Amino acid sequence: MVSEKMYELGTKKSTIRTIFEFGRKRAAEVGEDQVFDFSLGNPNVPTPDFIREAAVDILQTKAPNEIHGYTVAPGHPQVRAAVAESLNRRFGMDYEGKNVFMTAGAAAAITICFKALCETGDEFIAFAPFFPEYRCFVESVGGKLSVVPARTEDFQIDFAAFERLLTPNTKAVIVNSPNNPSGAVYSEQTIARLAEILRQKEQAYGHPIFIISDEPYREIVFEGYTVPYVPKYYEDTLVCYSYSKSFSLPGERIGYIAVPDSVADFGAVFGAIAGAARVLTHVNAPSLWQYVVARCVDKPSDISKYVENGKLLYDGLIAAGFTCVKPQGAFYLFPKCLEEDDAAFCERAKKYGLLLVPGADFGCPGYFRAAYCIKTETIRRSLPLFKKLAAEYGK
Amino acid sequence: MVSEKMYELGTKKSTIRTIFEFGRKRAAEVGEDQVFDFSLGNPNVPTPDFIREAAVDILQTKAPNEIHGYTVAPGHPQVRAAVAESLNRRFGMDYEGKNVFMTAGAAAAITICFKALCETGDEFIAFAPFFPEYRCFVESVGGKLSVVPARTEDFQIDFAAFERLLTPNTKAVIVNSPNNPSGAVYSEQTIARLAEILRQKEQAYGHPIFIISDEPYREIVFEGYTVPYVPKYYEDTLVCYSYSKSFSLPGERIGYIAVPDSVADFGAVFGAIAGAARVLTHVNAPSLWQYVVARCVDKPSDISKYVENGKLLYDGLIAAGFTCVKPQGAFYLFPKCLEEDDAAFCERAKKYGLLLVPGADFGCPGYFRAAYCIKTETIRRSLPLFKKLAAEYGK
Repeated sequence: MVSEKMYELGTKKSTIRTIFEFGRKRAAEVGEDQVFDFSLGNPNVPTPDFIREAAVDILQTKAPNEIHGYTVAPGHPQVRAAVAESLNRRFGMDYEGKNVFMTAGAAAAITICFKALCETGDEFIAFAPFFPEYRCFVESVGGKLSVVPARTEDFQIDFAAFERLLTPNTKAVIVNSPNNPSGAVYSEQTIARLAEILRQKEQAYGHPIFIISDEPYREIVFEGYTVPYVPKYYEDTLVCYSYSKSFSLPGERIGYIAVPDSVADFGAVFGAIAGAARVLTHVNAPSLWQYVVARCVDKPSDISKYVENGKLLYDGLIAAGFTCVKPQGAFYLFPKCLEEDDAAFCERAKKYGLLLVPGADFGCPGYFRAAYCIKTETIRRSLPLFKKLAAEYGK
Repeated sequence: MVSEKMYELGTKKSTIRTIFEFGRKRAAEVGEDQVFDFSLGNPNVPTPDFIREAAVDILQTKAPNEIHGYTVAPGHPQVRAAVAESLNRRFGMDYEGKNVFMTAGAAAAITICFKALCETGDEFIAFAPFFPEYRCFVESVGGKLSVVPARTEDFQIDFAAFERLLTPNTKAVIVNSPNNPSGAVYSEQTIARLAEILRQKEQAYGHPIFIISDEPYREIVFEGYTVPYVPKYYEDTLVCYSYSKSFSLPGERIGYIAVPDSVADFGAVFGAIAGAARVLTHVNAPSLWQYVVARCVDKPSDISKYVENGKLLYDGLIAAGFTCVKPQGAFYLFPKCLEEDDAAFCERAKKYGLLLVPGADFGCPGYFRAAYCIKTETIRRSLPLFKKLAAEYGK
């Protein structure tokens, strides 16, 4: 009567959602202060004042039909130009407005790219650990997702495993750095090596292989780390961005796809993106937020809270006997569980009110994700509990 | 290298877009006042003050992370409840929040429904004249669109033709009233007869056939006409709504799907809608606009300008010798061309600066669409030109 696949996708709760809901129920039973919910990647830094000021000013000074009218499908020309110019200033690119397609955030952006690129039999490659929705987005456009196992010592890329997965059907490779869930940032060396391999394979296979650079966490990067701008290293890159995390605007759905002139056949790629946005009914990203973004495009993100939280949680976990890659960006840690079975470990953590997400969900069993975009005080109070949990494992 | 189908959909300009762009070019050459652009359905009534006031007040008084944070996939519970209660007051329904899924406007809403419902081999039926994007939305989810030819004397439904197109594969029927492009409103009699036939066929085929009621123009209805609330007449109805036209907010992408408890297997339908929204990356409709809608849900639409414009254009066309169904709702007239070839007719009209859209685009050749959501003065100045055009045909 309905599409079974859609029913399944709409009703099978994600692990993250199940954990989050357990937390809400548990808080009602035992009190909010007994629940330490590290499950959700919802930014907790307040949306900056300049966003509110820009939105209010636009609402109060611009003609309403100009603010709220249809924009052309890829977004308002001036907004696209403002985004392009900002990227040029920051990364030395030569974008123009025509290179930018405004979208309802990064999830829409990557899905549009999948739909635009995917032909029958096409394969897309993700590196574990990875955002689990990649699989359902890729499969829903008829593609196949191949997953490169995690390089757990530093969450860079296992290139040997990667090369084994590349085939003549590989259409694109998804890069997500700073990474959800590992919190790692791909080094310049990693990106350069990735580009080198892909260039070789493009030659060998005689067709382009795209990088889809999913970078909603680009601005959330800590001292000592930099996020290489992927199109500077690899021509066939599509950049998918969201203002959800950098400006704490996840509910408003605003971001973009940037398509450099360097991609193989810009016209074909941009045209297919326009077609995909059309059938996914993702033309004309929310217009007020387009204008707000254009005004705030060069404003900095406030990451001080994430720096503080990341350090606090990392130090506490290390002191408790966990092993974990240092926080480099985004707002996640991805430590090793203290037993092999990550589901069992996270279940045991629940006893202490610690809500953690098993790594298997991200294609990396034996680890767990802790989102630290929560109150610093909650993290502080959770540390003795992590100690108790570790003590159960003889740490 | 890219999906050919997406490339085609993204690069082949629609007739409407082509005409609009011709108008912009022509205006630059001969002056804005020599161009009479009836091509676009972009509301020209200013967004009401109460919308700006609500948006500004929310921005200035609510906690920013509450306004801009992720909402759950189907929308904020209080917003869904507010929409449900408003519909209950207006139409005597018994919706609750759980019956409402907030979407990025009506195009997203209907596409989510198509994706949720469509199984292999499924057919969807539209009544000509119809919004041309229906075809690409239905086909992109793997469905087949069948079109019932127009009943041109009044733009109600040709039921004999409709019955011939119903098959055991019919999954849903799309109803769009007030109609784009005809400006007609389906009468109570039409809806009741439609429901009766569908109920018979549901019995005969042994499975539900849904009505997808695409009603962005519901509030734009003129004196003497009422828009029957389709779920009151037919149980298996999914209502797709947008605030684009009623509140002149087309750029902001906000609307909803309402799924009454009466549909065959509510859980399956709502679950599949959730899954479709997920893979189309249409969860969490823009959050500020969700809150604005909840505050303004009972506010009236200002349709006085459309009433004035519709009457002025209709009277002028009739006086010039055209035949045309009276304006009943929306902001379109759909008169008969003065020659059989609608493309040739619209081409000839261009000579006078009159930009009209051939009916063939809407599955109804021999007619043309004139969108009158433009300046009243422009309509007034266009009337002598319609007269001259008609005179060419001996009127």
